[in-house]
Amino acid sequence: MKKVVLAFSGGLDTSFCCIYLAKDLGLEVHSVVVNTGGFSAEEIENIEIRAYELGVKSHTTIDETTDYYQDTIKYLIFGNVLKNATYPLSVSAERVCQATAIANYANKIGASCIAHGSTGAGNDQVRFDMIFNTLVPGVEIITPIRDLKLSREAEIEYLAQHGFPYSAEKAKYSINKGLWGTSVGGAETLTSNQYLPDSAWPTPVTATDPQTISIDFEKGEPIGLNGNKIGAVAVIQQLQELAQPYGIGRDIHVGDTIIGIKGRVGFEAAGPIILVKAHHTLEKHTLTKWQLAWKDQITGFYGNWMHEGQMHDPVMRDIEAFLTSSQETVTGRVIVELHPYRFIVVGIESKHDLMNNEFGSYGEMNEGYTGDDVKGFSKIFGNQTNIWHKVNNKG
Amino acid sequence: MKKVVLAFSGGLDTSFCCIYLAKDLGLEVHSVVVNTGGFSAEEIENIEIRAYELGVKSHTTIDETTDYYQDTIKYLIFGNVLKNATYPLSVSAERVCQATAIANYANKIGASCIAHGSTGAGNDQVRFDMIFNTLVPGVEIITPIRDLKLSREAEIEYLAQHGFPYSAEKAKYSINKGLWGTSVGGAETLTSNQYLPDSAWPTPVTATDPQTISIDFEKGEPIGLNGNKIGAVAVIQQLQELAQPYGIGRDIHVGDTIIGIKGRVGFEAAGPIILVKAHHTLEKHTLTKWQLAWKDQITGFYGNWMHEGQMHDPVMRDIEAFLTSSQETVTGRVIVELHPYRFIVVGIESKHDLMNNEFGSYGEMNEGYTGDDVKGFSKIFGNQTNIWHKVNNKG
Amino acid sequence: MKKVVLAFSGGLDTSFCCIYLAKDLGLEVHSVVVNTGGFSAEEIENIEIRAYELGVKSHTTIDETTDYYQDTIKYLIFGNVLKNATYPLSVSAERVCQATAIANYANKIGASCIAHGSTGAGNDQVRFDMIFNTLVPGVEIITPIRDLKLSREAEIEYLAQHGFPYSAEKAKYSINKGLWGTSVGGAETLTSNQYLPDSAWPTPVTATDPQTISIDFEKGEPIGLNGNKIGAVAVIQQLQELAQPYGIGRDIHVGDTIIGIKGRVGFEAAGPIILVKAHHTLEKHTLTKWQLAWKDQITGFYGNWMHEGQMHDPVMRDIEAFLTSSQETVTGRVIVELHPYRFIVVGIESKHDLMNNEFGSYGEMNEGYTGDDVKGFSKIFGNQTNIWHKVNNKG
Amino acid sequence: MKKVVLAFSGGLDTSFCCIYLAKDLGLEVHSVVVNTGGFSAEEIENIEIRAYELGVKSHTTIDETTDYYQDTIKYLIFGNVLKNATYPLSVSAERVCQATAIANYANKIGASCIAHGSTGAGNDQVRFDMIFNTLVPGVEIITPIRDLKLSREAEIEYLAQHGFPYSAEKAKYSINKGLWGTSVGGAETLTSNQYLPDSAWPTPVTATDPQTISIDFEKGEPIGLNGNKIGAVAVIQQLQELAQPYGIGRDIHVGDTIIGIKGRVGFEAAGPIILVKAHHTLEKHTLTKWQLAWKDQITGFYGNWMHEGQMHDPVMRDIEAFLTSSQETVTGRVIVELHPYRFIVVGIESKHDLMNNEFGSYGEMNEGYTGDDVKGFSKIFGNQTNIWHKVNNKG
Repeated sequence: MKKVVLAFSGGLDTSFCCIYLAKDLGLEVHSVVVNTGGFSAEEIENIEIRAYELGVKSHTTIDETTDYYQDTIKYLIFGNVLKNATYPLSVSAERVCQATAIANYANKIGASCIAHGSTGAGNDQVRFDMIFNTLVPGVEIITPIRDLKLSREAEIEYLAQHGFPYSAEKAKYSINKGLWGTSVGGAETLTSNQYLPDSAWPTPVTATDPQTISIDFEKGEPIGLNGNKIGAVAVIQQLQELAQPYGIGRDIHVGDTIIGIKGRVGFEAAGPIILVKAHHTLEKHTLTKWQLAWKDQITGFYGNWMHEGQMHDPVMRDIEAFLTSSQETVTGRVIVELHPYRFIVVGIESKHDLMNNEFGSYGEMNEGYTGDDVKGFSKIFGNQTNIWHKVNNKG
Repeated sequence: MKKVVLAFSGGLDTSFCCIYLAKDLGLEVHSVVVNTGGFSAEEIENIEIRAYELGVKSHTTIDETTDYYQDTIKYLIFGNVLKNATYPLSVSAERVCQATAIANYANKIGASCIAHGSTGAGNDQVRFDMIFNTLVPGVEIITPIRDLKLSREAEIEYLAQHGFPYSAEKAKYSINKGLWGTSVGGAETLTSNQYLPDSAWPTPVTATDPQTISIDFEKGEPIGLNGNKIGAVAVIQQLQELAQPYGIGRDIHVGDTIIGIKGRVGFEAAGPIILVKAHHTLEKHTLTKWQLAWKDQITGFYGNWMHEGQMHDPVMRDIEAFLTSSQETVTGRVIVELHPYRFIVVGIESKHDLMNNEFGSYGEMNEGYTGDDVKGFSKIFGNQTNIWHKVNNKG
Repeated sequence: MKKVVLAFSGGLDTSFCCIYLAKDLGLEVHSVVVNTGGFSAEEIENIEIRAYELGVKSHTTIDETTDYYQDTIKYLIFGNVLKNATYPLSVSAERVCQATAIANYANKIGASCIAHGSTGAGNDQVRFDMIFNTLVPGVEIITPIRDLKLSREAEIEYLAQHGFPYSAEKAKYSINKGLWGTSVGGAETLTSNQYLPDSAWPTPVTATDPQTISIDFEKGEPIGLNGNKIGAVAVIQQLQELAQPYGIGRDIHVGDTIIGIKGRVGFEAAGPIILVKAHHTLEKHTLTKWQLAWKDQITGFYGNWMHEGQMHDPVMRDIEAFLTSSQETVTGRVIVELHPYRFIVVGIESKHDLMNNEFGSYGEMNEGYTGDDVKGFSKIFGNQTNIWHKVNNKG
Repeated sequence: MKKVVLAFSGGLDTSFCCIYLAKDLGLEVHSVVVNTGGFSAEEIENIEIRAYELGVKSHTTIDETTDYYQDTIKYLIFGNVLKNATYPLSVSAERVCQATAIANYANKIGASCIAHGSTGAGNDQVRFDMIFNTLVPGVEIITPIRDLKLSREAEIEYLAQHGFPYSAEKAKYSINKGLWGTSVGGAETLTSNQYLPDSAWPTPVTATDPQTISIDFEKGEPIGLNGNKIGAVAVIQQLQELAQPYGIGRDIHVGDTIIGIKGRVGFEAAGPIILVKAHHTLEKHTLTKWQLAWKDQITGFYGNWMHEGQMHDPVMRDIEAFLTSSQETVTGRVIVELHPYRFIVVGIESKHDLMNNEFGSYGEMNEGYTGDDVKGFSKIFGNQTNIWHKVNNKG
């Protein structure tokens, strides 16, 4: 019997797939769920129980949290990546990681097919298709939901017919939680002119007293929180716990999907947003002007190409090499103040701080150069524009 | 007697220059103040009174508010320019405009010298020097403060000796107010790790009730507020009046000066920050992916080159041509909610909205294409990476 | 009877389409050939005769030579576009122009279908499909060759059965001639390691005596040859006549197809290559450093996006606005020496030449600045790197 | 007595400096010549003899050929760097290497001053000043030629007075020979419209018979010639020997100097030009589209920033990290045909060739995808532009 690996979440679509793959297509179903930091132990257990209820041959949980950070999030921090100056790519980054883990798993167990529950209308189908095509090129991709285009009702009916009642109401909002933020889609996000109501955000705002925290970075990686060296994954998780109850990092992202249409999605991502802004501030103190400028030039592409599922294009490794090199001096502490719905980056402390008063402080004269040096500089720095204006009779 | 045009603000440094240019250098002093929207009528009058008290031959006020918007701010809005993802270039943009107006004025009255009160330690000297060198190349530039390096006390003493008592205390913070925001420098901004205290911000936070406003854009220009078509300059001014009492748009910018050192400066710029974010959101709905991407690539340079005083390099005209072209469809209304210390871009309404549900809405299937089309797309879109992995035995 | 517009070249594939569309699909066939400067009057006439022999309802020749120059080639010259530093995009540019003209024609005669003879293996199918989808979205696209996948023999057999003998032997090389160069594909270009033999190039090398010519540019457009103001299209055509017999502008382009695979194609394009190099040299004398640098940044994308058939993305209009602005001062004469297989750009003459000796000549001191100015410049210009090395203990 | 390190070439300017530093400034002169591959053993010996004749305390030859390749040329090859699409940066690259070596030498012997013979009119003064300021910040820079502005005659007179007759005639052309090419300046290059005559080029054209050669690259480095693995430096040297007698790689570069004026310089650089083109061709076969595109975006800056003497900005290390990463698969053989005044890149052979026929060859259908896949691709690939045209009523 041919083996199929099914990317399983326990929801209606992938529950339908479980039965359909086994009964209608006659495949041996091996369900898998990839945890990228978004599932609790209880959720993971419930997914497993559900999978076996649905009769899968095997079910496997792959914990990719650490790899997700190492292979993806780390570079999003290095690059201060906020798509369209807003969105930390919470979902996009995660899908790439999940698809890669599933492909590797399919390879490991010698599956001849992979099934995923994507519809024909979103980004995920492209990410999954492309990454499977690349990493396990001989493996057949099966997408029952996209191909059959069944209504929700038809899927529930099908499950019922096979003895699996599905009782859950359709949630008003579709929520996707992961290590790098939680997305919230539905209702208002399908319009262009409405914002999500308070009730739509998964984490209620309960924190009211401001607090000051510190984040320690080492070569660009956030390795400490409030003085405790706990490692990057823990910093992300604990900062999220700490800051999300302030309602920080909520926004709506408007962006281009891979398939060419515009989409809108809400997200809450206190940890990611604070980390990116804190890291960027530290870089403004420790990198040269052209390091900052070139990072800006290449990281927009990096984020977008990842968003489009192209993480396995070798150009991504080349950009990562640039980013890693650029982080050599991005070590120091960033002080942040949390307030309801907002935060302030108070300042930074770093032995690599180029604003070091010893070697020149802005607005003060110093030993490095004189006013006459600057006069000379101004003449030469403007020389070409001067000549242009003279030659073209505009001076 | 040789004529000198003096860029005059009424402060200690330029008051000193008034006397010094006339008495020590024997020049005929024509003082000029350029209003870029930062001075009230009363301030302008006081500056004029002060100039004549100091014995200038003539004093002139040049109102550049409209030109400042047309030649500079408009493009900062088109480009969503926030230097280092933070600072609307409040001061940099203004200096370029002022220097240009002064150069033109010197040309008009046939002055043989221009004097400015910059020290040898900041950005302004470079901007003034370069723009004067370019626009009035035969005119001598005189910079008494930079050259004499007098202490504040010595300047006061000199003025007193010439019969002009100067009583003002040195302010704790140096404030520069203009149409595109107010900068606040001093004390904490000279460190890397301290934030400005509440008392340092010029506009106290007095607004507490949230309100919803709307901004109308036409081809990228903000021409209406709350439904009233009042023109861009008035939108900027009234929005600032409305929003600054919420404490919106306060932050500290850390950046590279023209002379290579790092500097920090606080700013409050509710109007500029809201306009840039509102405009950018409208663009996300109305521009194609590559329009957004290329705007991101070129506007960082545009802002930075302006910051460095290079506004008269013809490349700036080329970038402006790009930006103007890109704004063809950036017409519509943006809805914004004001809250204490923050704002929300609620959404947009535009007949150019590419998220138009008629032609495809994200997450829903539509008539334009099928799931099979996307399967084909995924194959071809990932084709090269697939081949790369096969050829290099990594697939 | 439904009308179909057929992009017709008179070759085997489109001859087959003529019959197939009429007989098998029952459509009223309106054939059209778009001349972008590659066809002689005789060739155009033969194509028309052939079309009517094949029984088309109407046949139309659209001369797009001037529009092709105005909408496409002009910007390739402004942008010095040579894909992968080699290829003037001879075919890519032409296809976009042809597809646009055909779409407009289909619209004009109210056709309900457009047919093209592309196979499923190349770039052209994507260009035609996309441009038709965009410009005439309601019109059905029919691609018999791609869909039926018939062999050459099967097509000849089919034509014979319908009474149309097709006698032409398959040429060893596939040649495509247009205003912006001639491509040559086949045999060696299908390998990675072989070059085209002399016999493969359409124009034999017959010119042996070097000659010196001049090209006059006005705002970036080549409007004169050897002192005669003949207009850009004539310059391109006459220069090609003059220079191709020298064997100039022959090379093999290796590049990425739209569908992700690598391809190789030979081309001879003496006129385009000389014009691009001559124009670029004139720019090096008349544009500022940052105009040159930014042109380099955006024109690679422009050429590639055109190559990929995306000419109707509005970002292309934005880039064209940039390019047009940049050509303001690109006026002057370029002197070129033609030799067998190569040419030399001798130099330029322009009133906009920034190498103007009046205002500063390299290697000579001049009045604009002194050695001391340069000392000051060097200090400030290197200031940040100096500080970086001090702060990081590397100085 | 204070030690001064003098960058010494044996020419008039630095001979003058030898005496002037010792006699007029009372310094202990330690002359140094840095060989970056441009000097023969005999030339090196003559420079040493001359130095001791002029009475230096010590003279040292530093051979930097290998480091020059490793730190600089290697990346110019990786980046296919030709400034303004023409010039391999022969002189610029060398100066940076020389200045760095001299700074390190000054540090090693504890010199308190460094002297160089640059005038106040060129690029070299800025490169030397900046690199010395950065690497040995406490060391005083002395530039007698720039400061004294003596005429050639006055320098000869001064030398004669001190007993050192200087008989050499001023050469018509100033020649600078190094591992990465030879520059030729003077007479015609000071105009905009004249080319260098045959007699001006250092290497006469003596080779007439075409020959075919092969170059082997390993991860981007040219390590073999005609099948012999001789290492990169030897490949560069032997290829230059082989190819320069064909007159290959001669051209005139027009470019922007660091000080803002335009300059022109001739160069002959057969080896560098062939290597760059050969390497680029190999990359076109082995890199993905976006690797090629991003290399194009960043390497122009890299070359220019090196040209401007900013090699010690850490952003250069970041770009080098990108480039090194990108060379992972750039291994293979390139076949080149040499002809008088030109060369042909015949083709390449590489196990990393993405044009590998096994996985898809252009113009032929293959197993990886179907015509239907491409139809789907075209729909989705053009989707956004389609929507844009519909929304804006242009479709």
